[in-house]
Amino acid sequence: MTSAPPRQPPAVGVPNSTPVAAFTERELIGRITGRLPPPPAWMLVGIGDDAAVVEPERSRAEVLTVDALVEGVHFDRAFTPPGAIGHRALAANLSDLAAMGAAPRLALLSMAIPPGMPVAEFDAIADGIARLAARHRVHLAGGNLTSSPGPLVVDITAIGTVKRRQALTRAGARAGDDIYVSGTIGAAAAGLQALRRAAAPASSAVARFLYPEPRVRLGVVLARNRAATACMDLSDGLADAIRQVAEASGVGAILDAEAVPIDPAARAWFESRGADPVHAALAGGDDYELLVAVGPRLRRRLAAVAGSPGAPLTRIGVFTEERALIVRRGAHDTPMPEGYQHFRRLAEDETAPGGAEGR
Amino acid sequence: MTSAPPRQPPAVGVPNSTPVAAFTERELIGRITGRLPPPPAWMLVGIGDDAAVVEPERSRAEVLTVDALVEGVHFDRAFTPPGAIGHRALAANLSDLAAMGAAPRLALLSMAIPPGMPVAEFDAIADGIARLAARHRVHLAGGNLTSSPGPLVVDITAIGTVKRRQALTRAGARAGDDIYVSGTIGAAAAGLQALRRAAAPASSAVARFLYPEPRVRLGVVLARNRAATACMDLSDGLADAIRQVAEASGVGAILDAEAVPIDPAARAWFESRGADPVHAALAGGDDYELLVAVGPRLRRRLAAVAGSPGAPLTRIGVFTEERALIVRRGAHDTPMPEGYQHFRRLAEDETAPGGAEGR
Repeated sequence: MTSAPPRQPPAVGVPNSTPVAAFTERELIGRITGRLPPPPAWMLVGIGDDAAVVEPERSRAEVLTVDALVEGVHFDRAFTPPGAIGHRALAANLSDLAAMGAAPRLALLSMAIPPGMPVAEFDAIADGIARLAARHRVHLAGGNLTSSPGPLVVDITAIGTVKRRQALTRAGARAGDDIYVSGTIGAAAAGLQALRRAAAPASSAVARFLYPEPRVRLGVVLARNRAATACMDLSDGLADAIRQVAEASGVGAILDAEAVPIDPAARAWFESRGADPVHAALAGGDDYELLVAVGPRLRRRLAAVAGSPGAPLTRIGVFTEERALIVRRGAHDTPMPEGYQHFRRLAEDETAPGGAEGR
Repeated sequence: MTSAPPRQPPAVGVPNSTPVAAFTERELIGRITGRLPPPPAWMLVGIGDDAAVVEPERSRAEVLTVDALVEGVHFDRAFTPPGAIGHRALAANLSDLAAMGAAPRLALLSMAIPPGMPVAEFDAIADGIARLAARHRVHLAGGNLTSSPGPLVVDITAIGTVKRRQALTRAGARAGDDIYVSGTIGAAAAGLQALRRAAAPASSAVARFLYPEPRVRLGVVLARNRAATACMDLSDGLADAIRQVAEASGVGAILDAEAVPIDPAARAWFESRGADPVHAALAGGDDYELLVAVGPRLRRRLAAVAGSPGAPLTRIGVFTEERALIVRRGAHDTPMPEGYQHFRRLAEDETAPGGAEGR
């Protein structure tokens, strides 16, 4: 951030509806830093100079990722609470780090903000980021605030660490490796649909769309135990993740549709709308779960991981020598559906505003 | 980037006017990676996985910064060539690293792109980034591409390294330290005005606005020689930089207006328009020069630095015990003008679209 006094508490006596345009960049930065814990000793220079200076962690490789949430593409301010916008922006990055087996360490925040946005909304976004960051001990090292003549954009860069040889990539899966997925899937897609229709029934799914829990601990434990040959997160859907890992690893895959752990509320939601829950869950994005490839020799290590808290894993298929990508339901095989294609899909959705929401 | 094949050359046979919406995110990423040199050995995992994995540089602290260029705020696509958009987005970050004395190392790129943007424009932005990156040996480690329903946003995070005790901050200036500035100032502000009015005369100034040269080498040399007590870049103007360093350091400043090295083309431009060149140069932003504080004992070290190529430094004033910020012209003192205030100024400029251009 270009000009922040360190840790200035939020100003008092400002009406919630005051637009951010009534503040200087410096004052807005102060409203963020006032929500942060004291910086750790390894942060030699924090927010408030031209750049941050940090001490790297000893004998660790660094893992870096950046992800942006754009209003009208990834969320709609009409039905996404500002706290959820902040939460999801950081969660997407933490999920990427988890997929590499990295423990998160710090983040940089860049926001382009419509000048008319009420400052209370700005504060709530900062709260959403600060709370999730505190829970995972991620320290905000700096950032940039600018005005936007269009949508709100929340862009976060996150950096984590992992032992050099323990980083999990997409490329390590081999034919014969089992495919596992963490948690349950489909809830985010169902939650998004429910939110759009202002429908109450799928409220647990709505919460999972708005406040996804990145699998930070699972990623770290998988890496430490060297229990996985490949790993990827499901931000663009399960079908997409299987396709990406298979392509990067030079293998095919057979997915056992009946084994896919679909969130019960999501299953009920899709069935009530006459949709195929498996297909909806496969194609839907925003489940911040992990896809994990596990070699035959690693099953015992995985059992140790699976026993640890917060790491529910379900075997859903196998990577194969044959390069095809197949969804198997009993004796019936179908090709894996395509994943979400950001640019093409958006163009097709132009006639249906918000059609690309949630991706 | 979520899904990139490594180093895929740009596709052939695509008309330049094809919109980016006709491509997948993966194809667009391939058009960027095809413009990059091979990744260095320290980049253990580059573009194409959930996140990048890099080996930190030994016995160095890391310096991190993020900066965004937003269409309609920082540039206007009508008169900013796409190559300049890419160049300026990276230059702003490299300038921040230089101000800390850090040697740049890697960058992450996040873009929100209007789907109708011609792919040739996308390619030219990537070229602008890739060329400046190659010149300063900055390696692109990853990024994110998404669609924008509004303006083009180019957000870059850059990371550099510096020896722990050599990092230059804003807070080290003391009363009695001389104030130096690198290069000449005012050209970017004049160039921007000329561009807006489609005026040819100030063409060297236009080039300096479009393709600023961040003072990477100077920053590194200042840090290595421990020649400065404080340093900051001039992205928000010289007046702002003096104010920020003075506030962070707890001192005041007297600026000798007649010593300020104003770019000759800029001086001619401002004078032809009846404007005071000193005031215009002080208040104008986008000069990616460095403000440097130099203690009395460091003057000899600075002389060594000033002799090295690419490091023209001019003494323009002194930091003082007295906390006032003064512009001195001969015997006449005036208060330092205010710097650019992103949010307030934008609100005031709402009736004049593009009024905040260049900041």
